[in-house]
Amino acid sequence: VLHIARAATPNDVSPQQLLDLAAKMAAECRAAIDSSHEICGVAFASPAPAAKNSDGILSKLPNLPSLNGMNLPSGLSDMLGLPVTLENDATAAAIGEHWIGASRGTNNSIVVTLGTGVGGGLIVDGQPFRGIDGTAGEIGHICVEPDGHPCGCGSHGCIEQYASATAIIRMANELGLKVSTAKAVYDAAKSGDGKALAVFESMGRYLGIILAGLINTLNPEIIVIGGGVAAGMDAFADHIEAEISFRAFREPATRVRIVPTKLSDMAGILGVAKSAFDQN
Amino acid sequence: VLHIARAATPNDVSPQQLLDLAAKMAAECRAAIDSSHEICGVAFASPAPAAKNSDGILSKLPNLPSLNGMNLPSGLSDMLGLPVTLENDATAAAIGEHWIGASRGTNNSIVVTLGTGVGGGLIVDGQPFRGIDGTAGEIGHICVEPDGHPCGCGSHGCIEQYASATAIIRMANELGLKVSTAKAVYDAAKSGDGKALAVFESMGRYLGIILAGLINTLNPEIIVIGGGVAAGMDAFADHIEAEISFRAFREPATRVRIVPTKLSDMAGILGVAKSAFDQN
Repeated sequence: VLHIARAATPNDVSPQQLLDLAAKMAAECRAAIDSSHEICGVAFASPAPAAKNSDGILSKLPNLPSLNGMNLPSGLSDMLGLPVTLENDATAAAIGEHWIGASRGTNNSIVVTLGTGVGGGLIVDGQPFRGIDGTAGEIGHICVEPDGHPCGCGSHGCIEQYASATAIIRMANELGLKVSTAKAVYDAAKSGDGKALAVFESMGRYLGIILAGLINTLNPEIIVIGGGVAAGMDAFADHIEAEISFRAFREPATRVRIVPTKLSDMAGILGVAKSAFDQN
Repeated sequence: VLHIARAATPNDVSPQQLLDLAAKMAAECRAAIDSSHEICGVAFASPAPAAKNSDGILSKLPNLPSLNGMNLPSGLSDMLGLPVTLENDATAAAIGEHWIGASRGTNNSIVVTLGTGVGGGLIVDGQPFRGIDGTAGEIGHICVEPDGHPCGCGSHGCIEQYASATAIIRMANELGLKVSTAKAVYDAAKSGDGKALAVFESMGRYLGIILAGLINTLNPEIIVIGGGVAAGMDAFADHIEAEISFRAFREPATRVRIVPTKLSDMAGILGVAKSAFDQN
């Protein structure tokens, strides 16, 4: 990685504003890197479905509805004069970890990202698995409690409501812990606070239930835990393992390795770059 | 299909007994069909994992432990002088439906079999998906109630405990219905019995929760409901659809079709025959 430009996506960003922002960041990168490097394309990972043969029109962006209907690759390509590759961000993370990260050398892997929400990406037989509409991998919205906490997606009891950073804070607050970050709950757990330990026990148990179902369904070689919450994996890894051992079939449960990300927040960037290298 | 021979698998069957029984049935089939037909192989669908590159050794047969460790293809091939193809029975059903059944013409499908237990088979990108150890597709043991009814697999609250024929009978009995078959519960529901209707509402709801999770994860084109219980699908299809619509993302939920089997109890036989045709 030669240069990183960062910018927050403004609330209610318009398609034109997004294009201008992307062009500005691309120009910054161009200026920062040595002109001996050839630029083969632009890669874009977005929290939207990206089907293999789709036309690149964004849709289903619950947190960025102003972009629904935008043809991002075409607009950006016109602006920059470069081919543009679009990938779902969690699928991109799975591609990145498979390429040069924690799942390198395996053929069937699952990446679960635990951040503000819970995302997921699948590698099947060595290839990213996107499903017929590019929406595959929405692991965060598998139900773990049929009548559980309401979810932003409209359902109740999705694993996102029990295993995201947001959920860790909520569950801690419900137990009376005055915290506003998942890191604070983690620090409390590491210093032996019983309530914080209970939060991670519950969180790890629920995540283990979902992973056991994925193990029974997909028999993967490896599950990579990514996202910001992965940094505190020692607080909940044992609870995940206990639940998998209780609920998944012995053969796939023994086979699968549950490991933390190797690429952290670079997984998606590197993964979509890999997609761009493959396409251009 | 030119001829069908049927025999029950004896309890505690030994490997040699199974080989003798299979040889007897093969001889019956040979005698029954016209000698102008060439026999290219023997196909065997068993309720055991069958990995693509496995050595054919049976394992993980919870209901037939006496066969664990048996090399069925090799033993049968020596006895009959024909190549033997082994396939997991639910994967075989998925292959059959994809070949000439309800999921024909699609590339990504799931078959869910509702019988004594709940099984499942996956077709991904047009190919049977078996996972690294051949155990993929164990949909029946995805958890739907973390503290729910104990399951034969050792876990609690597996969907098998809420959507199998066995579960339908148990739930009906718990509500005070004196029935001993799922068909009797179905007949009672069709005649308007409130308790029987409640059983299918609960069963359809739980099955819909699991299917919604699979839809979010795999974004399939079609889900085929097979097994004996599929015959009563009109009693629970609406409850499945309601739950999918409540819980799955709109795009994959709108895409997927939930349909009954076209091949019924012939799906597995035809599917493993297809595998044998492809291999021989």
